Amino acid sequence: MPHEILIATESDLRQAVSLDLETVTTVEDAFKVLASGTVVMPPILSMAIEAANGEVDVKTAYIPGFDGFAIKVSPGFFDNPKLGLPSLNGLMILFSAKTGLVDALFLDNGYLTDIRTAAAGAVAAKHLAPASVRTAGVFGTGAQARLQIEAAHLVRPFERVLVWGRDTAKAADCAADIAARLGIEARAEADPEKVVAGSELVVTTTSARAPILKEEWLHPGLHVTAMGSDQGEKNEIEPGALAAADLYVCDRATQCETLGELRSALAAGMWNKGTPPELGAVVTGTHPGRQNDEAVTICDLTGTGAQDTAIATLAHKICSARGVGSKMAV
Amino acid sequence: MPHEILIATESDLRQAVSLDLETVTTVEDAFKVLASGTVVMPPILSMAIEAANGEVDVKTAYIPGFDGFAIKVSPGFFDNPKLGLPSLNGLMILFSAKTGLVDALFLDNGYLTDIRTAAAGAVAAKHLAPASVRTAGVFGTGAQARLQIEAAHLVRPFERVLVWGRDTAKAADCAADIAARLGIEARAEADPEKVVAGSELVVTTTSARAPILKEEWLHPGLHVTAMGSDQGEKNEIEPGALAAADLYVCDRATQCETLGELRSALAAGMWNKGTPPELGAVVTGTHPGRQNDEAVTICDLTGTGAQDTAIATLAHKICSARGVGSKMAV
Repeated sequence: MPHEILIATESDLRQAVSLDLETVTTVEDAFKVLASGTVVMPPILSMAIEAANGEVDVKTAYIPGFDGFAIKVSPGFFDNPKLGLPSLNGLMILFSAKTGLVDALFLDNGYLTDIRTAAAGAVAAKHLAPASVRTAGVFGTGAQARLQIEAAHLVRPFERVLVWGRDTAKAADCAADIAARLGIEARAEADPEKVVAGSELVVTTTSARAPILKEEWLHPGLHVTAMGSDQGEKNEIEPGALAAADLYVCDRATQCETLGELRSALAAGMWNKGTPPELGAVVTGTHPGRQNDEAVTICDLTGTGAQDTAIATLAHKICSARGVGSKMAV
Repeated sequence: MPHEILIATESDLRQAVSLDLETVTTVEDAFKVLASGTVVMPPILSMAIEAANGEVDVKTAYIPGFDGFAIKVSPGFFDNPKLGLPSLNGLMILFSAKTGLVDALFLDNGYLTDIRTAAAGAVAAKHLAPASVRTAGVFGTGAQARLQIEAAHLVRPFERVLVWGRDTAKAADCAADIAARLGIEARAEADPEKVVAGSELVVTTTSARAPILKEEWLHPGLHVTAMGSDQGEKNEIEPGALAAADLYVCDRATQCETLGELRSALAAGMWNKGTPPELGAVVTGTHPGRQNDEAVTICDLTGTGAQDTAIATLAHKICSARGVGSKMAV
């Protein structure tokens, strides 16, 4: 018996799904349910294809209360730029959580991942950053540097952005893009310590394999969201910083232990506070969040299948309502 | 930069890909490479959705020498028949092994899985069954009962088929289908022992959770392919039979230990011959296969991602050559 599925391409999805408060709320809801312990989220399936300097990850999660569950496939082939192709690609498939039938194919080339990743940064900033943020800093100059700042600005409308990157020209470009996009002041800052010193909110978005944000730079009233590390070799935050902060929060503790900043801290013997609280627990209030304006908080984001299910569900809702994408009988 | 992908539906694929010797050879090639130790095949990602009596499995494998790798998503939602829907569904995605870009989407509702599963049965029969098979037996009356017999007949053109199932009416239907399809004699047999006694080749295709083929029924010149068990609770072959056979072969030893007949034999303490040989090693000749017409052989098939990559690669080749399916710029 054929049934109809929705197929949406990257350009369809760019038209339909934006980084806005609805998106942030959808991802926030996913973290809430994640905290309830009822989400089913298997370990990430990961395969390396060394011959092509490539890898592919598959993530999924079932969130009770969501009509569907997404399976996301994210290939990363790091020689692609030599061929004029982007390194990162991929697609999401949304299945009915009632029947397992395919509801939608999102041929997004990673766009929905970009959006749901940035939205998680906004959830972290909303619940952990000081109530008032005048200056936000960002480490890194790529797509997530721009999107994380845009997302954080939805929940903390700061006036100024400081951008640090290894490549100062790219940092200047990134700052110019941010300034144009948000209509606020943004500039490159060559000294990462000054970025942290001058900011109440810092987002690290790099693929660093050695710390770029030092423990001694932590200052009262700082929140750091570290979203760059999503693999066992990556590390942006000096290991001692996690325990030195008043509150360190994981998106998913089991993932952060192997893929996030927590891995480096554990490996260095610098974390001895047991299993850290998760972002969802802070969102729902089962774990206390920021206690006062002077607290130092750190949130470690490795990316969860729950976010994928959330963004795919939202994309399906919007595309269906607006008639975006095409239908196919399968 | 948009690129073009192929999208093929189940009806496209039924038109393009058949259970024939080309298909069997493609799957046989995958087993050969699997035996070489160069295949990258991560553990299956599996997620249960208990609220809907559902589960979803994701399999993949990279086979050196194949241009692409498949990721297969197989949902099984076992309350679907109440809704008039099939329990099993799913799709395969073929990615370029050079760039990670999507080459093709096969919205096959499990058709390619049916074909590659049956083709593996043919590979097992080709390399392990006695050279001359006059009668083949099958346990089970579903789609795989029909397809496994059809596949085995490609490599052992037997004259007669005996079908056993718990439901005798279904067994009679299955036998009638086989007779019509292959133009040979086929009949239901109510006594499973008689099926085994009268056959040189037996394929078990059930979801049994307790043995239905007894050790004492093994007789000289018998080959058994057990393909029903693909989960930790399933078991078709009496545990002692594996060690009692002259040769017991796994499609993938690590999978059979947890999902196949080997699991039950290990749990019962009835297997003490170490890591069993794999089908690919028999195909390539690195492990001896059947030694003589009197030997008893058993092959345990749990289903491998390598088969999925093989069948998806073949489907892509055929669809592209014949212009089957549609193209989409993504």
